[in-house]
Amino acid sequence: MIKKSLISLGALLLLFPTMAFAEDPSASQLNMGLNALWVMLAAILVLLMQGGFILLEAGSTRMKNAGHVAGKTIFTLGLASIVYWAVGYGITFGGDASESLNKFIGIGDFFFNPSFAALAGDDYPSSVFFVFQLAFAAVSLSIAWGGFAERAKLSAYLIFTLFFVSVIYPVVAHWIWGGGWLAEDGAQDFAGSTVVHLTGAMAAFAATILLKPRIGKFNKDGSANEILGHNQVFTALAVLILWVGWFGFNAGSTAAIGDGFFGFVAFNTQLGAAAGAVSALLISWLVNGKADITAMLNGALAGLVAITASCAFVDPWAAVVIGLVAGVLVFFSAKFFEKMKVDDPIFALSVHGAAGVWGTLANGLFATEELSAKVGVGKAGLFEGGGWGQLWVQFESVVVCGAFAFLASYIVLWVVKQVIGLRVTEEQEIIGLDLSEHGNYGYPEQLKKENASV
Amino acid sequence: MIKKSLISLGALLLLFPTMAFAEDPSASQLNMGLNALWVMLAAILVLLMQGGFILLEAGSTRMKNAGHVAGKTIFTLGLASIVYWAVGYGITFGGDASESLNKFIGIGDFFFNPSFAALAGDDYPSSVFFVFQLAFAAVSLSIAWGGFAERAKLSAYLIFTLFFVSVIYPVVAHWIWGGGWLAEDGAQDFAGSTVVHLTGAMAAFAATILLKPRIGKFNKDGSANEILGHNQVFTALAVLILWVGWFGFNAGSTAAIGDGFFGFVAFNTQLGAAAGAVSALLISWLVNGKADITAMLNGALAGLVAITASCAFVDPWAAVVIGLVAGVLVFFSAKFFEKMKVDDPIFALSVHGAAGVWGTLANGLFATEELSAKVGVGKAGLFEGGGWGQLWVQFESVVVCGAFAFLASYIVLWVVKQVIGLRVTEEQEIIGLDLSEHGNYGYPEQLKKENASV
Amino acid sequence: MIKKSLISLGALLLLFPTMAFAEDPSASQLNMGLNALWVMLAAILVLLMQGGFILLEAGSTRMKNAGHVAGKTIFTLGLASIVYWAVGYGITFGGDASESLNKFIGIGDFFFNPSFAALAGDDYPSSVFFVFQLAFAAVSLSIAWGGFAERAKLSAYLIFTLFFVSVIYPVVAHWIWGGGWLAEDGAQDFAGSTVVHLTGAMAAFAATILLKPRIGKFNKDGSANEILGHNQVFTALAVLILWVGWFGFNAGSTAAIGDGFFGFVAFNTQLGAAAGAVSALLISWLVNGKADITAMLNGALAGLVAITASCAFVDPWAAVVIGLVAGVLVFFSAKFFEKMKVDDPIFALSVHGAAGVWGTLANGLFATEELSAKVGVGKAGLFEGGGWGQLWVQFESVVVCGAFAFLASYIVLWVVKQVIGLRVTEEQEIIGLDLSEHGNYGYPEQLKKENASV
Repeated sequence: MIKKSLISLGALLLLFPTMAFAEDPSASQLNMGLNALWVMLAAILVLLMQGGFILLEAGSTRMKNAGHVAGKTIFTLGLASIVYWAVGYGITFGGDASESLNKFIGIGDFFFNPSFAALAGDDYPSSVFFVFQLAFAAVSLSIAWGGFAERAKLSAYLIFTLFFVSVIYPVVAHWIWGGGWLAEDGAQDFAGSTVVHLTGAMAAFAATILLKPRIGKFNKDGSANEILGHNQVFTALAVLILWVGWFGFNAGSTAAIGDGFFGFVAFNTQLGAAAGAVSALLISWLVNGKADITAMLNGALAGLVAITASCAFVDPWAAVVIGLVAGVLVFFSAKFFEKMKVDDPIFALSVHGAAGVWGTLANGLFATEELSAKVGVGKAGLFEGGGWGQLWVQFESVVVCGAFAFLASYIVLWVVKQVIGLRVTEEQEIIGLDLSEHGNYGYPEQLKKENASV
Repeated sequence: MIKKSLISLGALLLLFPTMAFAEDPSASQLNMGLNALWVMLAAILVLLMQGGFILLEAGSTRMKNAGHVAGKTIFTLGLASIVYWAVGYGITFGGDASESLNKFIGIGDFFFNPSFAALAGDDYPSSVFFVFQLAFAAVSLSIAWGGFAERAKLSAYLIFTLFFVSVIYPVVAHWIWGGGWLAEDGAQDFAGSTVVHLTGAMAAFAATILLKPRIGKFNKDGSANEILGHNQVFTALAVLILWVGWFGFNAGSTAAIGDGFFGFVAFNTQLGAAAGAVSALLISWLVNGKADITAMLNGALAGLVAITASCAFVDPWAAVVIGLVAGVLVFFSAKFFEKMKVDDPIFALSVHGAAGVWGTLANGLFATEELSAKVGVGKAGLFEGGGWGQLWVQFESVVVCGAFAFLASYIVLWVVKQVIGLRVTEEQEIIGLDLSEHGNYGYPEQLKKENASV
Repeated sequence: MIKKSLISLGALLLLFPTMAFAEDPSASQLNMGLNALWVMLAAILVLLMQGGFILLEAGSTRMKNAGHVAGKTIFTLGLASIVYWAVGYGITFGGDASESLNKFIGIGDFFFNPSFAALAGDDYPSSVFFVFQLAFAAVSLSIAWGGFAERAKLSAYLIFTLFFVSVIYPVVAHWIWGGGWLAEDGAQDFAGSTVVHLTGAMAAFAATILLKPRIGKFNKDGSANEILGHNQVFTALAVLILWVGWFGFNAGSTAAIGDGFFGFVAFNTQLGAAAGAVSALLISWLVNGKADITAMLNGALAGLVAITASCAFVDPWAAVVIGLVAGVLVFFSAKFFEKMKVDDPIFALSVHGAAGVWGTLANGLFATEELSAKVGVGKAGLFEGGGWGQLWVQFESVVVCGAFAFLASYIVLWVVKQVIGLRVTEEQEIIGLDLSEHGNYGYPEQLKKENASV
C-alpha cells in the first residue's frame, strides 16, 4: 500500500506506524523476525509440495482420470484449510498443557484468530505458525489420497477431508508435537516421518482395502497387471518439487535460524534423498535387469520420508545409510504389497508407510547423544551407545500412531461406504472419473477421438 | 565470487569490504536487511506466478496454440521488463510528491539506475523494490492476455505490451500506490485487486470486444459452444503455483517483517483462497449437477483476487466470507459473460474483473477500524461501524480505475486494429497460432498426424 | 519438534536450548543469521532449477525418450550429491590456501561433516554453504547432459557423473572460486558464466563429438533435419523456472544481505534475461520471417548465462547491452553448430557455451572501476577506462577453463566408449530410450498405439 513510501526509511516509519517498528527494534525482536521469515519461507515451500502431489498423482494414473486427480487436490487443499482453521488446529495445539486431558487431545483455539502484531509483545507470530502447520496437515491428506486413486467418488474425498483434517491427523500431531503423551515419552520425529507420512499412508491403506483394487489390476489367477501412469515427465518433476519443498518440511521444522542448525538439517535431508534415489535405481537394475524410472523416483521420495524423522538427530554418514536402506526397502515393499493384492497406485504404502516406519525407527539406531541433547528430545540410539531405550520409544510411537490412524480412517470410510458408497460404478470407472465426476475430460482433445474409435 | 571466503566471517569481511558491513551493523540496518530479504523473496514468488500463467493459459486453450501461448508469456515478460525499466517505473513512482502534477502521474527515474549500496545510508534498496514492482506489472499484463487468446497476432502482443507497461498500468498504480489522488482519498487496495487485477481484466475486456469471439464459439442462434482447454493437469498446477505465489503478492506487500503483521496477511490470504475453491465447487455441483473442475479452479483464483485488496484490513472470518462470495460470484459471472456473447477463454473478466471489483468493495463492508488504522489508509467499513464513507471511496476507485484502464486499452487496440490489424486470418486461426505465427507446432508429434488426416 | 513450543518465546528458549540462542544474539550473530537465511533461499532456488532442466530437456526431445530424460535428472542429482559430498566439495574448497598445491587443487574436507552449530562461534554455517555449492555443481552437470541427449546409455550417465562431479567441475571451480590461480589473477566470474556454464557446455561438446549425431539428424548431402522437441509448454515453463531460479544463482552469490547489493545483482539479472529474450525473438523474426519460439527461449537463457559473470560488475545499461548481444549471438551460434554438423539437441553449446564465453569476456569490456572495487576482484574493463588488462584475464580464464573442461571430459568419455560403449544400438535409439533403458514408455498411453501401427 502506498508502496512509494518504501523507498525511504523515514517515510516508511511515518506511514506504517505499526507495521514496522516505531523505534529501532531490539535484538530479541530482530531474532524473532528472522525466525518468522524462515518459517514463512518454509510454509511456502511445504505448500508448494502440493504442486508435486498434483504431478505425482496425475502422472502415476491414467489420462481419463487426470483432470479429476489434479483438480481434487486444489479442492481438498481448500476444504482442508477451512477445516483446519475451524477445528484441526485447535485439536492439535489448543488448550492448556497442564490439564490431564491434554495428554490425548487439545481443546481450544477453534476458528483460530491470531493476533496481527504478535512480535510486539516478543511473541512469535502465530499466524505464520498456523500456515506452516496447515501445510503439514495438507501433505498428510495428499498422501492419503494415494489409496483412493482412480476409483473413489468425489463425495468420498469431501467427507474424508472433514474427518481426517479435523480429528485423525490432529490427534496424532498432538501426541508427538502438541505436548501429548508421546512427546512426554521422548519420541523423536523431527519433521513427521510418523506424524505426517505414516498417518497419511495408514489412511491410504484403509481406503485401498475398503475400495478394493481397480478394474483390471489383478487377474483371476492372482497375478498382477501393471497399470502404468500416463506421464513420467510429470512424476519426475513431481519428485523434484517435493525434494525442494522438503527443505521447508525438514529444515523449516527447526523454526529458528539460531546458530545455523537449520543448515545442518537441510544438509542431512539432501544426503538422505540422494542416497535413496541411487540405491533404488541400482537395486531395480540388479533385480529386474532394467533401471525402472518409477522405482528410482520412489527411492528418492523414500529417502526423503525416512530422513524426515531423523534429519536433526543423526550424523551425515548415517543420513546416507538411512537413505540407502530406504531406497532398497521401498523397492521390495512395493513388490510385497502387490503380491498381497493391495492396489496402491501412487505407492503410498511403500513410499510413505514403509519408509516412514523405517525413518522413525532409524532414530532408535543412529540418533547421537549430542544431537538428541541439542534438540532436547529423547536419547542416543542403539548404535550410538544409547542402548535399546530410544528404539523402543520409536517402535511404540510407530505402532500406536499407525494403528490409530488406520483404525480411525477405516471406521470413517466404512461408515461412508455403508451410507453413500465409496466407489464409482464399474461403467464410470471405465470411462474415467473426469467424465463421470466432473463432466469433461481433462485432456479433451486426446481422449475424444479414442472414445469415438471405441 | 571467491566463495571460499564465505566460510569464515573474518575472511568475509576482509574480501567483501563493502558487500558486507565493515563493522557490526546497527539494529536499523539489520531491520532494513530483514525487510529487503522478505521483499526479494516476495518478488521471486510473484515472478514465479508467470509460471502459473503459462500453465493456466496454455492449459485453458487448444493444443494447436499451446506453444504460442506459453512462449509469448516469456517474450512479453522480457519486453515488459525493459519497458518498465525505461519508462513504466518512472511513471508510477518517479517525481516529487509535492508537485501538483504528481496527483495524476509520476515523472522521473526513467531508465532506472538504483544505487548499489542502498542500505549504507539507511535507505531501503530500491533495486529490490523495482523487481517487486515489475513483477506486479507483469502479472497485470498476463491477465490482459486472457482477452487476446487463440486469435490475436503476435505483433499485437508486442505493441500492446509497450503501451500497457509504459503508461496504462503505471498510471493506475500511481493513483493508488504512487501517492496519487486516490491514495489521498484513502482508497484501500492492499495488494492490487483493483490496481493489478481489475486493470488487467479491463484490458482483456477491450481486447476481446475488438477481437470478436473465436471461430466456433457462438452459433448463429446465439447459443455458445464449449471450447475446452486441452490440459487440466496444467490448469490445476497453475492454480497451485499462483496460490503459492500469492503469498509474495499479498503478504509481501507489507514490505516489512516488522511485528509479524505479514503473517496475518498470509493467513487471511490462505482462508480467502480456500473458501473460494470450496464455494465454487459446491455451487457448480448444485447448479449443474456436476462438480466442474474449471469452475472450482476459477473459484480458488477468485478467492485470491478478492482477498488481495482486503487481506490486511479484515478479520479472518471476513476473509472466509469474502472468499465464499467470490467463488459463487465467479461462477455466475462466467455464465453471464457467455450469455452476453463475450468470448473470454481464460475467464479474465470473471476471475480478475468481477472478483477484483468485489474484493475492492469488500473493504468498504468489512474493513475494521483497528486494521485500517494499523495500515494507515482509509477507515472502517459499513459492517464495522464505519458508515458508507469507505464503501464510497472503494466504489469510486473501482469505477475510475476500471474506466480508465478499459478506455486507454480500447483506444490503443483500436488504433492497432486500424493500422496493422489485431486478428490472424481465418485460415491461420484454424491451423493454429503455433504454425501461423511461429512456424512449428508446440506439440509436433501429436499434431502432425491429425493434419495428415485432415 | 514439540512445535507447540514455538508459540511463546519463553517456551522456545526453554525447549530449544541450543537451536535458538540462550540469550539475546549479538548484532554480528544476527547479521550472520540473515546471510545464512539468504544463502539457504538461494540454494533452494538453484536446486529448483533442476525442475527447469527436467522440463527443458524433456520438452526439447521426443516423446519416446521423455521418461528417460526426465528421470535421469533425478538420478544424476542424487548421485552427484553423494559424490560431491564424498569428494567434489573437498577438491573445490578443501585444504590450506597457503600451500602451493592449493593454486591448482584443493585437498581436504572429504565426506564433508559440517559443524551443526556454526554460528555459535561467529562462523558462517558451512552446511548451508555446501548445499548452495552442490546446487551449482548439479547445474553444471545438467548442462553437460544436453550433449548426451536421446542416444547415450544410462551407464554412461552414471560413470560420467562420478568423474565430472568429483574432479572436472571442482577443479575449475577451485581455480576461480576456491582461491586457485585464476582467483589470484583477478578473473571476474561472479556466479559462473565460465565455472558453471562453460564447463558444462564443454563437457556437452565432448559428448556430442564422441556420440555422433542422432539418427536422422543429418542427411547424406550434409543438410540438417529439424528434430523438434515434443512439448513447448514444457520448454517455456522451463525457461521461467530457470529465470526465477537464477535470482538464487546470481544474487545469492553475494552470500550476504549486507548493504543491499544483492538487490542490485538481481536487478541486473532481470535486465539481462529480458534483453536476451527480446533480441532473440526479433532477430529470428527478421532473419527467418517467423518468430521462432525455441530461438526466443534460447535468447532468454543466453541473456541469463551472459549476465551471470557480469551481474555484479556492470551498470544496468550494460546489463541490457550484454543481454541483447547474447540473444543475437545464441541465434547465430545455433545455426553455426548445425552447419558444422554438431548435433546439440538442447543447444548447450550455444546457450551455455557461446553465451558463457560472451558473458565472461563482457566483464573485460563493461566492468566499472567502482563495482570491481566493491566486489574486490579485478579491474575496470576496456570501455570503462581500464584498458585491455581485464579483458586479457577474462580471455585467459575462458580459454584455460574451457580447454581443461573439454579435454578432461573427452578423455573420460573416450575411455568409457572404448570399454563399455557410450551409445545405445540403432534399434534401441529408434524405439526410444524409455523402452530400451528403462522398460516402459514415459507416455505409455500415447506411444503404445503408434507402435502397433508401425
